[in-house]
Amino acid sequence: MIVELISTGSELLLGDTVNTNVSWLAQELNKLGYTIAHQSVVGDNPKRMAEVFQLASTRADIVISTGGLGPTQGDITRNVLADSIGRPIVFNQEAMDEVKHFFDRVKRTVPDASRREAELPEGANVLHNPVGVAPGVVVEDGDTTYILLPGPPGEMKGMFHDSVVPYLMSRFGSQGVVTSYRYGIYDIREIDLENTLMDLIKNQSNPTIALLIKKGYIEVRITAKADTLEAAHELLNPWDAIVRDRLGARVGRDLTVSMEETLGHVLLEDHSTISTAESCTSGLVGKLLTNVSGSSEYYMGGVISYSNDVKHRVLGVPQDMLDTYGAVSEQVAKAMAEGARTVGQTTYAVSTTGIAGPGGGSPEKPVGLVWFGVTGPHGTVAHKANLIGNREDIRQSAAELALYYVYTYITEKGK
Amino acid sequence: MIVELISTGSELLLGDTVNTNVSWLAQELNKLGYTIAHQSVVGDNPKRMAEVFQLASTRADIVISTGGLGPTQGDITRNVLADSIGRPIVFNQEAMDEVKHFFDRVKRTVPDASRREAELPEGANVLHNPVGVAPGVVVEDGDTTYILLPGPPGEMKGMFHDSVVPYLMSRFGSQGVVTSYRYGIYDIREIDLENTLMDLIKNQSNPTIALLIKKGYIEVRITAKADTLEAAHELLNPWDAIVRDRLGARVGRDLTVSMEETLGHVLLEDHSTISTAESCTSGLVGKLLTNVSGSSEYYMGGVISYSNDVKHRVLGVPQDMLDTYGAVSEQVAKAMAEGARTVGQTTYAVSTTGIAGPGGGSPEKPVGLVWFGVTGPHGTVAHKANLIGNREDIRQSAAELALYYVYTYITEKGK
Repeated sequence: MIVELISTGSELLLGDTVNTNVSWLAQELNKLGYTIAHQSVVGDNPKRMAEVFQLASTRADIVISTGGLGPTQGDITRNVLADSIGRPIVFNQEAMDEVKHFFDRVKRTVPDASRREAELPEGANVLHNPVGVAPGVVVEDGDTTYILLPGPPGEMKGMFHDSVVPYLMSRFGSQGVVTSYRYGIYDIREIDLENTLMDLIKNQSNPTIALLIKKGYIEVRITAKADTLEAAHELLNPWDAIVRDRLGARVGRDLTVSMEETLGHVLLEDHSTISTAESCTSGLVGKLLTNVSGSSEYYMGGVISYSNDVKHRVLGVPQDMLDTYGAVSEQVAKAMAEGARTVGQTTYAVSTTGIAGPGGGSPEKPVGLVWFGVTGPHGTVAHKANLIGNREDIRQSAAELALYYVYTYITEKGK
Repeated sequence: MIVELISTGSELLLGDTVNTNVSWLAQELNKLGYTIAHQSVVGDNPKRMAEVFQLASTRADIVISTGGLGPTQGDITRNVLADSIGRPIVFNQEAMDEVKHFFDRVKRTVPDASRREAELPEGANVLHNPVGVAPGVVVEDGDTTYILLPGPPGEMKGMFHDSVVPYLMSRFGSQGVVTSYRYGIYDIREIDLENTLMDLIKNQSNPTIALLIKKGYIEVRITAKADTLEAAHELLNPWDAIVRDRLGARVGRDLTVSMEETLGHVLLEDHSTISTAESCTSGLVGKLLTNVSGSSEYYMGGVISYSNDVKHRVLGVPQDMLDTYGAVSEQVAKAMAEGARTVGQTTYAVSTTGIAGPGGGSPEKPVGLVWFGVTGPHGTVAHKANLIGNREDIRQSAAELALYYVYTYITEKGK
């Protein structure tokens, strides 16, 4: 079953808005076994938009558009579809009920302009908008099914899950499923990871396997196609066992959860607390840890010791250690972590000190070199990484790795 | 002059990659006065891709594609274009020189596969790739100019600026310019900002004006079209004067520079230093300040006082103040800033304490309430904001506002 996605809106042609709707819809439809053959973007121009709809009907079974369902004169998608399939626009009571229902909920009267949102091509079905005003529209015409969705991502996604998926299922039946397992692999070079999984990479067909470089980790993704989710899982499970067996603790997490959630879960289970001492990441580790609502249960806070003076005075890193080894060193990373644990009075502490660049590198300590310290009941350990990318990449990668090193320290008791 | 953008690559149809190339190209081309009428995405399928090229040639003067110029068998864009305009693929010595030049630079011999990158449609011109291997391709055919660019954003952008812009200029002459001034407006409600600028909003044609809600500020953008950049500036300058005159210090910055750069510049000029005390932002203010390379000149560090215990013990916030007013209060925000200034031994300090949500709100202190403290030689002040959005939005907005409040404290001497 071939789908074409049409994005409408002049803001897309101007480049002011990055088209995230289309990648999201493509991912969701691919998971359901549909094939996307084309994506088109067209502005709020009736003639051009009608041509795009007509062309799509010749090369796809299902045409899904986003945008142009609002109440203004610039919202023309309903009218353009009606024209391009030769049907009149008619008042649709079900759509009007949807519009009324929205304004009832927010205790306002229906504005005159919103009546437009209930004027649909003859024979259209209405999709409930769980977030905003404009109802979605489904029209069957000849061999083609047209589905018109609103442009705001929250409305589009809600409507897709609540209404479009059930509609596609009842209308076209299951198309099979495509499903993936995704792992975050930490503390390994790409070339070593590739060698570890070379037999899978060489012999892939179903499942397939992909390695993607991310900030601070490498994503391994295995994907299978099958008639049912159960059958897809049966294809994936032997590969899952191989990945976990060969990579062990380097599988930091299942990518459906973030590293900060993974670590937070362990800290909650352990009834323990953590503090941070950050130099090159300068607050980013603390920010990540507190992305998780409820993180105040285990994260007490920390020190951003961007200057050596703060490292010495607040974290108690000895001045002669800073002079002898430099701020970016194993010794200072450990002392920073120990200092943070004392300041925060926590079970564990983690530190970062490195060279984020673009300046400040040297042959011995190049840009991207980061030392991490982790301390807790099992003593103090240090880790070193040579990270790549620009300043932002290096800092993001370092913060992610800091969380991973605490996680392994806790789960492997001091390793 | 009408341009159509074609993005090739099955990863786009799968939704694994968000198509940022197309919005970037659209913005750049619009600035040069070109009109984008359509954008199309097609996978690595020769027949479908050829149809997309043929259609584009019927509705655009210039067709620009991205992707599919690499050395693998899946890189088919050169061949598809040749087929669709009925020209043979021939070995192109200039392209081969480009490929060789790249491998010379990295001291490797040219791989056999890379010979493909020099096999171009007959009559093609070559565009230098300043970053990677694959040269770009220009083919004039009838009324249509085809420009094939590589898919990796760094290569595509470099080639566009270095080669495509000069090519378009010499081939088609100036198309006029579209240029904007963009301001970050802080510490004002949208409705008040709209009222302040209502006469401009109502009477816009050239320039136009737009208000866009961002995290921690509102973007005001005024845009003019003219034959030359100078003429566009002449149209914009009277509006620029109005915006600055009516909004004064609320114009926090020109949006070509970030708030952290704007503040960093003032701190450097002032030869002064700053420290931070963060609760709800939990490190994000420190992270933003150090986005700027060289920020170690003025940012000494700070305390992430996520728990009340750290607020009390490390920052010296009196326990009875925490008990009486609560952590999210004017009093505690001021005491945190003063504590950070003492810990960091800095000229200025800034603090944040608020409710990022989703939990923790109450009728008196709802989710989104944030107090800021700023201290320095002119005494200690506090600011309050009621921020909207999810946890991440509220934290990003709060960090941005914290930087703005320090900036106005310094530039307005304690306001």
